[in-house]
Amino acid sequence: MNTDLQDYSHKRFNILTGEWVLVSPHRAKRPWQGQNEAVSNEVRPSYDESCYLCASNTRINGEVNPKYENVFVFTNDFAALQTDSKTFSVDDGLLKAQSEQGICKVICFSPDHSKSLADMAPNEIEQVVLEWQKQYQELGDNDLINYVQIFENKGAVMGCSNPHPHGQIWSQTTLPNEVEKKDTQQRNYYNEHKKSILGTYLAQELEKQERIIFENDAFVVLIPFWAVWPFETMIVPKKHQTNISEMKDEETLLFAEAISVITKAYDKLFNTSFPYSSGIHQAPTNGEDNSHWHWHMSFYPPLLRSATVKKFMVGYEMFGSPQRDITAESAVKMLRNLL
Amino acid sequence: MNTDLQDYSHKRFNILTGEWVLVSPHRAKRPWQGQNEAVSNEVRPSYDESCYLCASNTRINGEVNPKYENVFVFTNDFAALQTDSKTFSVDDGLLKAQSEQGICKVICFSPDHSKSLADMAPNEIEQVVLEWQKQYQELGDNDLINYVQIFENKGAVMGCSNPHPHGQIWSQTTLPNEVEKKDTQQRNYYNEHKKSILGTYLAQELEKQERIIFENDAFVVLIPFWAVWPFETMIVPKKHQTNISEMKDEETLLFAEAISVITKAYDKLFNTSFPYSSGIHQAPTNGEDNSHWHWHMSFYPPLLRSATVKKFMVGYEMFGSPQRDITAESAVKMLRNLL
Ligand SMILES: O=P(O)(O)O[C@H]1O[C@H](CO)[C@@H](O)[C@H](O)[C@H]1O
Ligand SMILES: O=P(O)(O)O[C@H]1O[C@H](CO)[C@@H](O)[C@H](O)[C@H]1O
Repeated sequence: MNTDLQDYSHKRFNILTGEWVLVSPHRAKRPWQGQNEAVSNEVRPSYDESCYLCASNTRINGEVNPKYENVFVFTNDFAALQTDSKTFSVDDGLLKAQSEQGICKVICFSPDHSKSLADMAPNEIEQVVLEWQKQYQELGDNDLINYVQIFENKGAVMGCSNPHPHGQIWSQTTLPNEVEKKDTQQRNYYNEHKKSILGTYLAQELEKQERIIFENDAFVVLIPFWAVWPFETMIVPKKHQTNISEMKDEETLLFAEAISVITKAYDKLFNTSFPYSSGIHQAPTNGEDNSHWHWHMSFYPPLLRSATVKKFMVGYEMFGSPQRDITAESAVKMLRNLL
Repeated sequence: MNTDLQDYSHKRFNILTGEWVLVSPHRAKRPWQGQNEAVSNEVRPSYDESCYLCASNTRINGEVNPKYENVFVFTNDFAALQTDSKTFSVDDGLLKAQSEQGICKVICFSPDHSKSLADMAPNEIEQVVLEWQKQYQELGDNDLINYVQIFENKGAVMGCSNPHPHGQIWSQTTLPNEVEKKDTQQRNYYNEHKKSILGTYLAQELEKQERIIFENDAFVVLIPFWAVWPFETMIVPKKHQTNISEMKDEETLLFAEAISVITKAYDKLFNTSFPYSSGIHQAPTNGEDNSHWHWHMSFYPPLLRSATVKKFMVGYEMFGSPQRDITAESAVKMLRNLL
């Protein structure tokens, strides 16, 4: 291991976005005098009659949820994107805008109000994975939809307004900023080398074993060299697959196992239901050749050194670059110890 | 005014970064069931003996603050960047890193522990502006420093660990991500049109008067067309100036007045000491021709609809694009009414 990376300020390059993260390892020891987050370690009931995501309950628009047993998907009652909104564009000097259409869905991971992915068995998580595959395909088949963003906001600190285990799927006509960056970087590498940049990176990491947390036959969980959040991780398929619908047979269960392993480790780290936003980046559904894409799932958790102290991405990070203190390599060691 | 922009989902283009923001105006009405922030409306004393930024107090490293009367600047005791750290680079397959050196300073805006910029008179704020100019020049004259980032994190919710009025200055060898983007966009326009893109945009906004909050002889405060945060604003000099050291004579006081006007309006909006990160983007100090730069100061405040309800930039925003509900034009009206 290059020890300079553990001792001196430096920046690391994100091969997928083309951007940099500033790392200041010596700063990990500064005392914390700022805001502490409230932690709720309250034990929730399996069913909450006031929860609009629990089975058989009525949602705000009057619809009644079915008595679902595994997963349940519905169109977001307050969708940020809609299929029937007007199309228009503004091209007025330096004011440029264009309408955007799409479909936003909510996916309940389990009827059990008290659970999170970390509490679910891999075969239960597999039901979620199978639904993600179905949604990716169905939404992608819609002519209006060229990209499908699957994500989860977990925990009040991540803006999640209901603790019932659920995620979201926002699908739309154009590629969002982050996807556009990854599309460009992956395409450039693929055109030049005729292989996936993430696959090549994965091979390098598997050889080094410095940032690997877990692997099974089909997936690797690692902290990418360029991770921004203190305990950011990524799940990468070993095979070059452009999107999640390419997972076959036991691969969906192996992916579920990887999700289970990392979310359980997170919960142990600070002995709390670990907040994060997670998301799957994968090939657009625009009907073009997307062989350069290698899909992956990332977890961006905000906690820094305890259940109540988070990393703030504020002033310098907003105006300059993301910045971290604890290195990816130190974070890997902490997470590995919890498996 | 184009009413489609107030009614239907669309994305707007940020001419300075080349990125998009998703706007969903119809969504502003969804109910909030998520986390509320703690608000502290506690009245602070003018002097706090436990504050390491108050005059004459001792800091963590044993140094004693002078009995300062206006502003006071010192090198950050836990600097993320240092001048004496080792230089090195890593170029190992897909792992790319390079050392980064720099100087991080803290600037106390006033000896009065109880104040914020919003409580200070324009002539007091002018002292801060004059110190920013001095720091920009001094740091920029250092061969090691090619960029100077001035910023403030205000409020516990923005990761600020001490309520004493203060900001920071992180200066470094290379350009951070956000500055790199603005450098490219401004350069491209300048090369093609031989004038500043921000100046051209400003002229367009002054004609439309739809997003202007305030103006004096030298500065305009507006909500940019592509604003991300609910009440994001920008202060732009009317003259084409590449950096803050070009402000002359009464311009420093007029800039202080603009800061005073917007921070006071913010505090009135939700009747609370309004949290934000603010920052000045300006020409690098790399000795190159930076005529394409037009400096500006931005405010990124997190609050959405009350002192306790903030906008979360999470799942979709982290993996896709920033997203907002309330439009820039609605936010302008609310702020204008408070002047
Ligand atoms: O330097 P401070 O105020 O201790 O720290 C704050 O500002 C820094 C610069 O934006 C951030 O990196 C930290 O996460 C934040 O808590
Ligand atoms: O859709 P929700 O859970 O109400 O809202 C949450 O996730 C959205 C998508 O990341 C964000 O835009 C909101 O700011 C956040 O509070």
